Amino acid sequence: MRLTGVIPPVCTPLTPDHQVDTASLTRLVDHLLAGGVDALFVLGSSSEVAYLTDTQRRVVLDTVVGHAGGQVPVLAGVIDMTTPRVLEHARVAREAGVSGLVATAPFYTRTHPDEIRTHFRTIAALGGLPVYAYDLPVSVHTKLSAGLVLELAAEGALAGVKDSSGDDGGLREVILGRAAPFSVLTGSEVTVDSALWMGADGVVPGLGNVDPHGYAELYRCASRGDWEAARAEQERLARLFEIVRVGGSRMGGSSSGLGAFKAALHLRGVIDCPVTALPQTPLNDDETGRIGKLLAAAGLL
Amino acid sequence: MRLTGVIPPVCTPLTPDHQVDTASLTRLVDHLLAGGVDALFVLGSSSEVAYLTDTQRRVVLDTVVGHAGGQVPVLAGVIDMTTPRVLEHARVAREAGVSGLVATAPFYTRTHPDEIRTHFRTIAALGGLPVYAYDLPVSVHTKLSAGLVLELAAEGALAGVKDSSGDDGGLREVILGRAAPFSVLTGSEVTVDSALWMGADGVVPGLGNVDPHGYAELYRCASRGDWEAARAEQERLARLFEIVRVGGSRMGGSSSGLGAFKAALHLRGVIDCPVTALPQTPLNDDETGRIGKLLAAAGLL
Amino acid sequence: MRLTGVIPPVCTPLTPDHQVDTASLTRLVDHLLAGGVDALFVLGSSSEVAYLTDTQRRVVLDTVVGHAGGQVPVLAGVIDMTTPRVLEHARVAREAGVSGLVATAPFYTRTHPDEIRTHFRTIAALGGLPVYAYDLPVSVHTKLSAGLVLELAAEGALAGVKDSSGDDGGLREVILGRAAPFSVLTGSEVTVDSALWMGADGVVPGLGNVDPHGYAELYRCASRGDWEAARAEQERLARLFEIVRVGGSRMGGSSSGLGAFKAALHLRGVIDCPVTALPQTPLNDDETGRIGKLLAAAGLL
Amino acid sequence: MRLTGVIPPVCTPLTPDHQVDTASLTRLVDHLLAGGVDALFVLGSSSEVAYLTDTQRRVVLDTVVGHAGGQVPVLAGVIDMTTPRVLEHARVAREAGVSGLVATAPFYTRTHPDEIRTHFRTIAALGGLPVYAYDLPVSVHTKLSAGLVLELAAEGALAGVKDSSGDDGGLREVILGRAAPFSVLTGSEVTVDSALWMGADGVVPGLGNVDPHGYAELYRCASRGDWEAARAEQERLARLFEIVRVGGSRMGGSSSGLGAFKAALHLRGVIDCPVTALPQTPLNDDETGRIGKLLAAAGLL
Repeated sequence: MRLTGVIPPVCTPLTPDHQVDTASLTRLVDHLLAGGVDALFVLGSSSEVAYLTDTQRRVVLDTVVGHAGGQVPVLAGVIDMTTPRVLEHARVAREAGVSGLVATAPFYTRTHPDEIRTHFRTIAALGGLPVYAYDLPVSVHTKLSAGLVLELAAEGALAGVKDSSGDDGGLREVILGRAAPFSVLTGSEVTVDSALWMGADGVVPGLGNVDPHGYAELYRCASRGDWEAARAEQERLARLFEIVRVGGSRMGGSSSGLGAFKAALHLRGVIDCPVTALPQTPLNDDETGRIGKLLAAAGLL
Repeated sequence: MRLTGVIPPVCTPLTPDHQVDTASLTRLVDHLLAGGVDALFVLGSSSEVAYLTDTQRRVVLDTVVGHAGGQVPVLAGVIDMTTPRVLEHARVAREAGVSGLVATAPFYTRTHPDEIRTHFRTIAALGGLPVYAYDLPVSVHTKLSAGLVLELAAEGALAGVKDSSGDDGGLREVILGRAAPFSVLTGSEVTVDSALWMGADGVVPGLGNVDPHGYAELYRCASRGDWEAARAEQERLARLFEIVRVGGSRMGGSSSGLGAFKAALHLRGVIDCPVTALPQTPLNDDETGRIGKLLAAAGLL
Repeated sequence: MRLTGVIPPVCTPLTPDHQVDTASLTRLVDHLLAGGVDALFVLGSSSEVAYLTDTQRRVVLDTVVGHAGGQVPVLAGVIDMTTPRVLEHARVAREAGVSGLVATAPFYTRTHPDEIRTHFRTIAALGGLPVYAYDLPVSVHTKLSAGLVLELAAEGALAGVKDSSGDDGGLREVILGRAAPFSVLTGSEVTVDSALWMGADGVVPGLGNVDPHGYAELYRCASRGDWEAARAEQERLARLFEIVRVGGSRMGGSSSGLGAFKAALHLRGVIDCPVTALPQTPLNDDETGRIGKLLAAAGLL
Repeated sequence: MRLTGVIPPVCTPLTPDHQVDTASLTRLVDHLLAGGVDALFVLGSSSEVAYLTDTQRRVVLDTVVGHAGGQVPVLAGVIDMTTPRVLEHARVAREAGVSGLVATAPFYTRTHPDEIRTHFRTIAALGGLPVYAYDLPVSVHTKLSAGLVLELAAEGALAGVKDSSGDDGGLREVILGRAAPFSVLTGSEVTVDSALWMGADGVVPGLGNVDPHGYAELYRCASRGDWEAARAEQERLARLFEIVRVGGSRMGGSSSGLGAFKAALHLRGVIDCPVTALPQTPLNDDETGRIGKLLAAAGLL
């Protein structure tokens, strides 16, 4: 069965003292399900997975799997440097009851393409769940080649790919080269209509935390072939995506993007506190105000 | 007190089924102490820290701290993506009884220099032990600027730096700019004499696993001002360092370097098994044979 | 007037002794015009501009401008490291009678975004012709931000952008943010239908040398709103684009891509000799044979 | 004959309207020769070669070769993207009467190591003069491996290397691996004593424009084995090198570094005008004032 539709990477609300805010997290899950999403992806980059301790990761898994209660599939990121560490996260996620694993290529280490292949094969063999490759060169500093993805797809080691590389040429190469049950998901917030047009199966939009209804509507329009409406919805969302640039050059891209999603969720009343994990720089009042204006312009406040 | 001398990043011997081989590890500690090293650095890059599970990291900490028994200081790498995860490793290492922590800048995330500053300050404030910055751009994809290192040194957040950037101009800028008790350690295996000449305090050489006597001798020569002898010893070690290139382009740089250290330790009879963690590519018999020849040429077999 | 449609970067055929083969070049121009292209772009990356001496560049300009005889606009790449060198190329191109200039950001030097702005402003002020920004991070090692492109567009310094960054999110940001007469062209061979769908004005496809009819047909389909047909044509061309990967990892990407275009043009009888400039590695017979098979599969042999 | 000693990359003074200021350039040559340098390197990165038109490059060649009048060897940079363009510069430089050529690996193009080998071999075969490889990854985005440099040295294609990579481990590998007549020059301003200590033959210091006496003195001290004096001189120069950071993050690294050298030469009365070529950002009065203070602290005002 191919995973399709809108699968937001669920933000991880924190309390002011940096603990997982499970009450806000369950409200966020409700908000996403009410918005019509098709599955949930916890512990992705937009979930601040890189900042969460293993204990916090487990709280997130238990909270979301428990609260979703089987209404939709839950995928879990198993983001870590190498195979043995990823396998540990996979074991925990499997025990928590998720439906699939999302893994990047190794990072921090200097890794050969043959070793990346071994990495995914090993996770597939020992992880006990379908594996989705997470192509995120901005973090991992390696681009997964279409050739490698297709090879791993053909042998059954990968159930799909989440392509956050921004390289839609490579995305198309995978779409045209795959055999039937392999799921191609774009991680781009602003080219969803065109990715679906090319034949992608779904989208994993960080911005989907803020406006799940919008992405669900976009997907529905595309599914019924109303591409004009899909494009109009996408263009509205692309303008909203401007919130991630409000932080500008005075902070890192992670702070700016993740801070914007949380500020917007806080302004919309979904989560109690917009704080992000250390060492991220918080948005200031002026920046939060500008996010509010962009939300209002998108009809979300 | 300034940390000085030879502080090898201790390799982590594994069994054929990829468990930590504690018997080999204690023999390796004996080998290093007999070689005359001044401190031990566990859970560094050469220790395959990126490949070890948290359970394995703890076994390494307990084994080495226990076996060293206070003869020399033991530093611990707390290598992870961001501040909260690093702090978890710091807590474990502190409980194990180490003398200092070695931390990189954040990786995987997109981090501003101000956020790197916050990262190190937070570890210093909450880690409970002296903190050494680990400058390793090949893994972290950020170079720590001399200005930032000196600023953190001046305020007492850093006790020292392990510079594995290969940039000896930056190393010198730190040496010339620091105030007294800040320890500057080079991570380069092949420019130790010149780093000491510039005023560095010591070296953290991966190759020191294979030939601790060599590095200890090099350091002693430099300490007593016999620079000609130091250079001769360094040149012998630089030729031995060729073992890390035996794996060539058919594997990643991590496999080639870490595999070579372990193959050499195995050939020298220090550890039982040269296996490296997944997904690294193992050296083949021909490559191991060439390492043997380089060991022989260096007088180590 | 906004530049639109198919604007191939014209390959530069060489003789076996590496001179510009003007007879083949004029045949190539005829082939492109017969294929229905809307303009010609000489001295781009696919033209081997980086390998041509200034004398050869001038031969190309004179040959193509002369032979095109005003039937379609001719744009000229003015590819060089910095502003003063680019202005020299601009002067020559203007004297040759081209209709517009295509310039990258500075490269080789370490350049601030403010200096990139100055660079384009100066070319616009002194170049005497409309200027198109060429966004090619794989060569220039800088990505032009959508914000900078839009700022330069708004003040009239840029007439358009050729986006070869592969980042269709950034492309869309420019499309949504621009005012009317600014031309957005994609440099991607395999996402033309989706770029046009987003609102791009045209395409600058290296593969358009090999199959100009295909790209012209794709553009016509999109223009009349027959997106299904546009996609089918794009998918055929995307499969043909596989020719650029035939050279594989035994040569650089420039050799593999430019060599493939020339081999295909030679196999199709358009140019006399498939040789590429030094120091590129030539394709061997086996590789050329595989290109022939891909051409046949695309109905081009 | 092996090239040795201090070989500054000669700055190119410009008039306020950006022409080559030949009067200032000849004064600068006099200043360098009076300072005791061993050779001159024109048209290097510190000469703003990337910003000079071909006409300006020729003016520089003629002016410096003419004024030096055979007192010392003059090397010429032949900096351009690929082999054919480099060969054109080589022809011009040879006609101007220089003693050697300095060439980088190809840039802008995507080049395989085998193609880099072909590039240098071709320049050696057709350039008509000794060729020095210029290893400058910050500009070229490729590091020349020690293995490739040594292979080209062994076959006689290279007469030497100017290593501006900052990687002193690689520098040492070349020094230890070379046969006799191959010249190893460091391009680092701040590790000259240690490079000479390792066995390097000389230095190509941009800062040598500002203080040629200092580098000549440093080299003399090292040559006679007075390493303590060499280090003291190096440390004084390392502190002076702080001038290149005065421009800070408001401009590109090229503007900051080249601007500082020219501001210092202007303050010292050697050149008439400190202007740098477009699109570089000029230093402001405050920054120039800080450079003046650093010059005074180094005893140069």
